[in-house]
Amino acid sequence: MKEHAITYDVEVIDEKMRKKHLSIPAERPLTLYVNKKELLTIMTLGANTRSLIIGYLRNQRLVKSLDEIESIQIDWEVNAAVVKTKNTNSNIDTLTGKVTLTSGCGQGTMFGDVTAELEKFQLGVDLKLKQSDLLEIIDEVRMYSSIYKQAGSVHGCALFKQSKMLFYCEDVGRHNAVDAIAGKMWEFGLEGKDLLFYTTGRLTSEMVIKGAQMHIPFLLSRSGVTQMGVEMARNVNMTLLGRCSGKHFYVFNGVERLIFDLLD
Amino acid sequence: MKEHAITYDVEVIDEKMRKKHLSIPAERPLTLYVNKKELLTIMTLGANTRSLIIGYLRNQRLVKSLDEIESIQIDWEVNAAVVKTKNTNSNIDTLTGKVTLTSGCGQGTMFGDVTAELEKFQLGVDLKLKQSDLLEIIDEVRMYSSIYKQAGSVHGCALFKQSKMLFYCEDVGRHNAVDAIAGKMWEFGLEGKDLLFYTTGRLTSEMVIKGAQMHIPFLLSRSGVTQMGVEMARNVNMTLLGRCSGKHFYVFNGVERLIFDLLD
Repeated sequence: MKEHAITYDVEVIDEKMRKKHLSIPAERPLTLYVNKKELLTIMTLGANTRSLIIGYLRNQRLVKSLDEIESIQIDWEVNAAVVKTKNTNSNIDTLTGKVTLTSGCGQGTMFGDVTAELEKFQLGVDLKLKQSDLLEIIDEVRMYSSIYKQAGSVHGCALFKQSKMLFYCEDVGRHNAVDAIAGKMWEFGLEGKDLLFYTTGRLTSEMVIKGAQMHIPFLLSRSGVTQMGVEMARNVNMTLLGRCSGKHFYVFNGVERLIFDLLD
Repeated sequence: MKEHAITYDVEVIDEKMRKKHLSIPAERPLTLYVNKKELLTIMTLGANTRSLIIGYLRNQRLVKSLDEIESIQIDWEVNAAVVKTKNTNSNIDTLTGKVTLTSGCGQGTMFGDVTAELEKFQLGVDLKLKQSDLLEIIDEVRMYSSIYKQAGSVHGCALFKQSKMLFYCEDVGRHNAVDAIAGKMWEFGLEGKDLLFYTTGRLTSEMVIKGAQMHIPFLLSRSGVTQMGVEMARNVNMTLLGRCSGKHFYVFNGVERLIFDLLD
């Protein structure tokens, strides 16, 4: 197999015993070292890797700003990324114990601390979205020439400013895709309060928490929601739009930010 | 909201500004304490919780057999599960550091150690599956009255003995669902070598690793695969069937275990 490809061609056998060729997404380990300490191994598609690393460090609260990161070196020969931070006494050493403790199976990541932190946090109410723009967003995602379309089996996240798509990141895990978006926001100096966040994945508590941490008032998905996703969205006053498909969608929370300009 | 429900009713607004009622799955934190030490917080549906805990400890290699677990107490009042093991000098203390280190975002869990461990492991070739039985399995999953059907947004895993379904476990994360199945196998004293494992989720490296750890030679999904899922399946000689839907499927590896009894 080629090195560093994002998709691979595999030969499969179908139900008639015919040989076929399919495209499938790459998946590779990347071990993250921060200040010479091994932090964790992420399984990733291998696209947007720099943004993924920055976003991971951001969402795990291991660095407080992009400035704190001195350098990132990614070496796919050994599947490793080496990060140096400016202040080696930064959050990394004190937080690492706590972070890894709650990060099993992707469901518990950061949960304990962040919930408390977000307890009194409220997203701003200034940003509105017209239904006509929402339908454009849904259509833009549908038309986007994604790796998902070509090879399936990846999750995608996109950042919109009204109906304009700023970024689209895909990865084998939905957590990675959202982390890559968080990284891009720092790299391009974008604040969340004017933006909309789209994910192909489900709207679970963790997605709402990450969206709120990025101060993004809108979270959209073509998939559904969980009860704690809704509960968290209510707590932070986030507009939660699920099952977005064609002209259809459900507003699970925060309908006051939506302008129904297409009703007769 | 009710305590301990598996699904919840929520009021949503649709694209015509109509109020509707939808059923959505529960999602709740469960903090796992093992021998008085906090291990991690899992976000879970709250079904099959005992099996999930047993399977989690099993798949993380924290206990070597069900006998090692003295007691499990689940208290949903405080969202905690308290596990006591018989030998407090067991794997738990030595492994905890290593396990949490690689368990970020669900993609890296256990990866480093287990890959090496599985390097020379080969699944047995005795078990065969007829295409006609495979179609029955696909149909059985389709007909199963799942939480997914009612509320969406969960992943399901099932264990089959030929075309007979033994268990069906669902959870908000696909990792939890497979852990619950691993727990049930221990609880019912089942060995993997005669069984087939079905998941609604994608066949990534971690699913193949967990299947191989359970010694199950067949892994089936209605979803697709990643390149490392295929690579791992080749390494351990696992039969990998993806995109199973209706009468269709693709064999990504191990076609020699499949008997094409429906061809003319």
